[in-house]
Amino acid sequence: MSAPDRFAPLPVTDTPQERGDAARNRALLLDAARRLIAERGAGAVSTDDIAAAAGVGKGTLFRRFGSRAGLMVVLLDENEKAHQQAFMFGPPPLGPGAPPLERLIAYGRARLAFVHDHHALLSDAGRDPQTRFTGPSALHHTHVRVLLQSAGTTGDLDAQTTALSALLDADYVEHRLAEGATLDELGDAWETVAVKLCGR
Amino acid sequence: MSAPDRFAPLPVTDTPQERGDAARNRALLLDAARRLIAERGAGAVSTDDIAAAAGVGKGTLFRRFGSRAGLMVVLLDENEKAHQQAFMFGPPPLGPGAPPLERLIAYGRARLAFVHDHHALLSDAGRDPQTRFTGPSALHHTHVRVLLQSAGTTGDLDAQTTALSALLDADYVEHRLAEGATLDELGDAWETVAVKLCGR
Repeated sequence: MSAPDRFAPLPVTDTPQERGDAARNRALLLDAARRLIAERGAGAVSTDDIAAAAGVGKGTLFRRFGSRAGLMVVLLDENEKAHQQAFMFGPPPLGPGAPPLERLIAYGRARLAFVHDHHALLSDAGRDPQTRFTGPSALHHTHVRVLLQSAGTTGDLDAQTTALSALLDADYVEHRLAEGATLDELGDAWETVAVKLCGR
Repeated sequence: MSAPDRFAPLPVTDTPQERGDAARNRALLLDAARRLIAERGAGAVSTDDIAAAAGVGKGTLFRRFGSRAGLMVVLLDENEKAHQQAFMFGPPPLGPGAPPLERLIAYGRARLAFVHDHHALLSDAGRDPQTRFTGPSALHHTHVRVLLQSAGTTGDLDAQTTALSALLDADYVEHRLAEGATLDELGDAWETVAVKLCGR
């Protein structure tokens, strides 16, 4: 990478340089994945299925998305955008205007519902360590981190963000729901831990 | 499963019923995996490599261990045993005899060092959602849970255990170390969060 590149914006998903057939294959693969996942659930859809339904080779899928997890991240991204809009720019207590601890509590409850709705996609996307500390999850980490900091927490901020965010992990949430916990109870647990970390 | 089976002990890794050739293939695969991982690191060893070095088919590997993660769990298990011995039966503050919060703090520091030493194996084993809430990690979860409870924490105990245990996740630990944090600093962060959760 040449020196000026270090200051270039991060690559976005669709670049103007992406050639016409590459862009078309990408769209075909996303459409196929969306359709198959709606029919069967993400857990029952393989990269073979997606490539076959899109009418392209499996190599094309990996060239366009890097991995199965990479494709899942792009699919999630569409739903994430509306969710992010709500907690970044929407009305309080989720959006700006409420005190940070109130926003943090509202965020946890909203995110738990989203995580449950999108469990299969999130579980897949989270399995790739390459995407775990980047992609949409990095934005959530930053949001929790900023709210913890604004709420006046003390100690290692990144560790506290990681500890609190573990309660929103898709596999953990499904594991607790399967054991009989409700989303409300998980929201209460989130609140308890958030309050303790902020020293109230 | 017939009714009396429900009360039978959980299956252990080597059962007397395991046939001679199955047991031999299992030992060959474990030896090969151990040797290749020592040479190259776990990240650079595929199931193909392991099966080839053991002189068995790849299907045999999956029949014996279920998955790559399953094999990693068995390998880890050997090292885990010594580590578990120390925190379950060893001298205080890690072992019994010290107050629970002191034991919890000592456990975090000891576990961080272990996790760093065994990063590649743990990262692999943790990627399989089937082994995540069972296997060796379930024992660690229970240990943290019991100590949090004995230290008088309030609120959802499982959520707090999950939040605190996230600080021992192999990928998180390596991510922080790569960013320049030291094991001591991560140990301090563990202590801060543990103390807050216990309301001190």
